[in-house]
Amino acid sequence: MVTPALEMLERYPARLSHVDRRALANCIEECFACVEACTASADASLCEEEVTELRKCIRVTLDCADVCDATGRVLSRNTGYDAHVTRAVLESCATVCAAAADECERHTGHDHVQLCAAACRRCATACRELLAELA
Amino acid sequence: MVTPALEMLERYPARLSHVDRRALANCIEECFACVEACTASADASLCEEEVTELRKCIRVTLDCADVCDATGRVLSRNTGYDAHVTRAVLESCATVCAAAADECERHTGHDHVQLCAAACRRCATACRELLAELA
Amino acid sequence: MVTPALEMLERYPARLSHVDRRALANCIEECFACVEACTASADASLCEEEVTELRKCIRVTLDCADVCDATGRVLSRNTGYDAHVTRAVLESCATVCAAAADECERHTGHDHVQLCAAACRRCATACRELLAELA
Amino acid sequence: MVTPALEMLERYPARLSHVDRRALANCIEECFACVEACTASADASLCEEEVTELRKCIRVTLDCADVCDATGRVLSRNTGYDAHVTRAVLESCATVCAAAADECERHTGHDHVQLCAAACRRCATACRELLAELA
Repeated sequence: MVTPALEMLERYPARLSHVDRRALANCIEECFACVEACTASADASLCEEEVTELRKCIRVTLDCADVCDATGRVLSRNTGYDAHVTRAVLESCATVCAAAADECERHTGHDHVQLCAAACRRCATACRELLAELA
Repeated sequence: MVTPALEMLERYPARLSHVDRRALANCIEECFACVEACTASADASLCEEEVTELRKCIRVTLDCADVCDATGRVLSRNTGYDAHVTRAVLESCATVCAAAADECERHTGHDHVQLCAAACRRCATACRELLAELA
Repeated sequence: MVTPALEMLERYPARLSHVDRRALANCIEECFACVEACTASADASLCEEEVTELRKCIRVTLDCADVCDATGRVLSRNTGYDAHVTRAVLESCATVCAAAADECERHTGHDHVQLCAAACRRCATACRELLAELA
Repeated sequence: MVTPALEMLERYPARLSHVDRRALANCIEECFACVEACTASADASLCEEEVTELRKCIRVTLDCADVCDATGRVLSRNTGYDAHVTRAVLESCATVCAAAADECERHTGHDHVQLCAAACRRCATACRELLAELA
């Protein structure tokens, strides 16, 4: 599938030798999808009657949105590539996404939280896969 | 089409009476797609030989990424809806996206800039359509 | 007082003819101070026993943090200045900050919310003052 | 000195047992100061005649702004504290800030880049100090 991120990468004006384009495009897409899911689910949790039981879940999804946003932006840049920076950002994003997914999965009664858990889990996996691919 | 933003809106725990869900979901998706396109294209422009001619284009696409990011996040929240806030944010986003599209369309020789122009134009349109729908 | 934003503006490599440096630097500082205050206060509200009464307050301060972040970033850029973009962003930021200040001022029992109200009010004022100065 | 971040932390409604408030407040302030410095310096570099030599510097300061923004937001939240998340984010921020400082320090001819280098170095140090303090 040619996603918007992949379309952009295919038009990058220099060679991309440090990374597989599909793994990179996939990770960018998952990061921004996770920003969307976490922001919406944190707000929906705030609206729930059981908001007090969802405090930790709201907090970690807000964190996850911010970290995925930064990661999606860093990965969208290829000029002056520095493997050290990219690796640090991916490690941190994978950790935060996994923590958010773990917490969300505990709240089985809320469908929006389960959608969010799935988005966080996919993003954690995409970060780990990209880390394994990076030159 | 059931996009991720629409899936989330369908699971929001309260009624959404102020807005058409499809128009809202569409605008959220276009905002985050525009963050992606603008961030990637600004970086690709920085890598171009003609970077000096692309300065204004880089600047306005960086602005557009930041404003679309904020707008996508605001639109993803429905708790404690305030029409005044949503309208102000949409007006500003439509203006910035249109300015970015105008500038990008001038640089016809760069495919990534044209992809970015299209994303900005779609987001400006989605903001205007949502403004017309809002209660 | 020479703030960090003013120090940076004094080292900008081209002339800044469109704006008074002090008003611009002040607005940049207030935007980022507002991001800090809103993010911290939204989290502190989430921790309060009366979280259900603070839902709308949490929501609007999260919005305000995002909009001030985008505005602070846009104002920090001077290359390829476009008055149209800057005005749109400032108008929207002034509106959102005023809405957040209004809501925060209703919750007089929480000191962190009152600190946040003051930060939002100062940022709204700084945006209005800069709008009045802009060429 | 009682900074805005410290004023907020002193009004947090629960005990903060996991961390020294001054080290935390200092790191929050340095993160947001670094967002400001990096965003302004990246734009000023884009305006320089020698923009082609500053490409890598622009890129890493844009990354640093995004990562410090996410880190400043995560650190501003104390509800549902998870040491694992905070440590991951701080490690990544320290790495990115150090990489940005290293690159900026190479461009001695530009005062705004040297101001930015100093902000990045202070933020990297604040992250390392906070990591050493965290329970």
